[in-house]
Amino acid sequence: KKRFNIALLPGDGIGPEVISVAKNVLQQAGSLEGLEFNFQEMPVGGAALDLVGVPMPEESFSVAKNSDAILLGAIGGYKWDKNEKHLRPEMALYYLRRDLKVFANLRPATVLPQLVDASSLKREIAEGVDMMIVRELTGGIYFGEPRGIKINENGEEVGISTEIYAAHEIDRIARVAFETARKRRGKLCSIDKANVLDASMLWRKRVTALASEYPDVELSHMYVDNAAMQLIRDPKQFDTIVTNNIFGDILSDEASMITGSIGMLPSASLGESGPGLFEPIHGSAPDIAGQDKANPLATILSAAMLLKYGLGEEEAAKRIEDAVLDALNKGFRTGDIYSPGNKLVGCKEMGEEVLKSV
Amino acid sequence: KKRFNIALLPGDGIGPEVISVAKNVLQQAGSLEGLEFNFQEMPVGGAALDLVGVPMPEESFSVAKNSDAILLGAIGGYKWDKNEKHLRPEMALYYLRRDLKVFANLRPATVLPQLVDASSLKREIAEGVDMMIVRELTGGIYFGEPRGIKINENGEEVGISTEIYAAHEIDRIARVAFETARKRRGKLCSIDKANVLDASMLWRKRVTALASEYPDVELSHMYVDNAAMQLIRDPKQFDTIVTNNIFGDILSDEASMITGSIGMLPSASLGESGPGLFEPIHGSAPDIAGQDKANPLATILSAAMLLKYGLGEEEAAKRIEDAVLDALNKGFRTGDIYSPGNKLVGCKEMGEEVLKSV
Ligand SMILES: CC(C)[C@H](C(=O)O)[C@@H](O)C(=O)O
Ligand SMILES: CC(C)[C@H](C(=O)O)[C@@H](O)C(=O)O
Repeated sequence: KKRFNIALLPGDGIGPEVISVAKNVLQQAGSLEGLEFNFQEMPVGGAALDLVGVPMPEESFSVAKNSDAILLGAIGGYKWDKNEKHLRPEMALYYLRRDLKVFANLRPATVLPQLVDASSLKREIAEGVDMMIVRELTGGIYFGEPRGIKINENGEEVGISTEIYAAHEIDRIARVAFETARKRRGKLCSIDKANVLDASMLWRKRVTALASEYPDVELSHMYVDNAAMQLIRDPKQFDTIVTNNIFGDILSDEASMITGSIGMLPSASLGESGPGLFEPIHGSAPDIAGQDKANPLATILSAAMLLKYGLGEEEAAKRIEDAVLDALNKGFRTGDIYSPGNKLVGCKEMGEEVLKSV
Repeated sequence: KKRFNIALLPGDGIGPEVISVAKNVLQQAGSLEGLEFNFQEMPVGGAALDLVGVPMPEESFSVAKNSDAILLGAIGGYKWDKNEKHLRPEMALYYLRRDLKVFANLRPATVLPQLVDASSLKREIAEGVDMMIVRELTGGIYFGEPRGIKINENGEEVGISTEIYAAHEIDRIARVAFETARKRRGKLCSIDKANVLDASMLWRKRVTALASEYPDVELSHMYVDNAAMQLIRDPKQFDTIVTNNIFGDILSDEASMITGSIGMLPSASLGESGPGLFEPIHGSAPDIAGQDKANPLATILSAAMLLKYGLGEEEAAKRIEDAVLDALNKGFRTGDIYSPGNKLVGCKEMGEEVLKSV
């Protein structure tokens, strides 16, 4: 029997509810494939702030770092919104990504036929959307130096953030993207602002140079402003997208809303070695926390990504993906994806329905 | 009779066609209100590159700078796409904005009832959208130093761009936005990434501090990734938006696509003094250039903004706006906004139809 240590970081808001459901599904899928999991649950974000006064306690980090894979719920809430920067729940994500060195963030955005009417887009535009956004996660303007609020020579305050990418940082994320595109429909679109930003010019140059190593992948480039339009005009034109940290933040949220089911979308953050970090892309939804209303499918699908990308256990992953489709095909819907004619269920019941089909 | 000098910068692609049509409409609306225009046409962008080897010739700039207002067509084309950075047509825009010091870019995004079906969004989501995006245009990551591609201590290339805002730059764009909101529905949403970027933290702090001077305006804040989602989920929640240069570039393009009629949307770029720059937000569309297929309405509506914001001639502006609605109500449509049951016309004929109603 294969054994794996899984760190569970439920976090805040609906995080604990969706993690508890996803854990059961993961356990079940694993045991049917001969995998044994040792789960260890640790506080992060607002939960950690309340317990020990910091958003990312060293002990939580060390458990996460020494695990085989990490499943995270959600982070943040109104309660801590006025905290100073270093005492904000979101800093847990910031430190986790940086210190785990998970530079590649994979964010699928898929419109399931069962849920096409949940999209804001017209049916004929939304139908069949299936893209993977590969976002650089540990560089760029999120981490660049210098940064801060300084006083300039006129005694005036100046806010500074630095977008900076070294060649090797671009190359390694581009390789992940080319490999990803290769396993999908073979199309990669790199998104930048190379008509204005020097950081984007180097980005485009390096990505272009790598293309010859992936002759089976068709590479194109698009400016970020145009991409924000094209995602709405014709999202089906995209297969795999690669972009920097901040553009990826914006475009992946836009793409997720296009699918209309942000409660459905998982993500994986991977480094060169060490455990990967798997989490739903939705937030902590404090307004519905503790009410058994959350949609657990994004976290359940993150558990599937954990099996596939984190542990290389494709069979177990497939079990979960199929079980989710099964529950949807049977008409089970949480409130966020409900439409008349289906069966409205809560977070726990949705989890049980998925469990039945694993 | 009031006299004004108007600089016309047709630029590239469909630019000359739409400028020639808009010029006639502007002339007519002005003469009916007792205004006399002295038009001076100058090359910029690719057209200038071909003529004199630079995208923004000094003489063109000086004519523009000394005018009362500038009407620009569009810039760029495949032909110059491989040029080095300083020889790219887009640099004309970059220099014009910087040297005219037009820091406030107003970009309305409106869904006209006549055109609601042109949107990618479902009718009930698109209907009634009416927002104004106020984008900072002469600061931030577009212009910040240091920038460039440098070699680091490992001998590796590094691309650098700097997002930087001084307090006074934030204050002056925020004031334009508060004033704009005051004349609209009194709601201002400031968009930033203050949970991560120091430049955004100062942005939020300054905007918040100014709010007490505008007690009649309701101020809110939103993170840029959430804004990219909310624009699709429920665009009607927005009245006036204020944001930095790069976020404004991305979000205003996204918003324009939401209206489904990018061929309809004008823009105004204003400074503290000197002429304003007025231009459609669409590009040069080289694939349809010279074929009398372009939609001139965005440029015609830019001429209306020129009258209103550039010359303070609201009556003449209103004439143009009403004439555009008239032409649409009569069913005239260029290809980009055509739907069955309407009359398909070219650029010139659309111009003539608008002229008739001015
Ligand atoms: C919470 C925030 C720091 C984070 C980010 O900007 O990366 C979030 O928006 C995300 O996309 O995971
Ligand atoms: C052409 C380009 C430099 C420009 C910009 O990024 O500002 C354009 O996208 C715009 O929005 O006017």
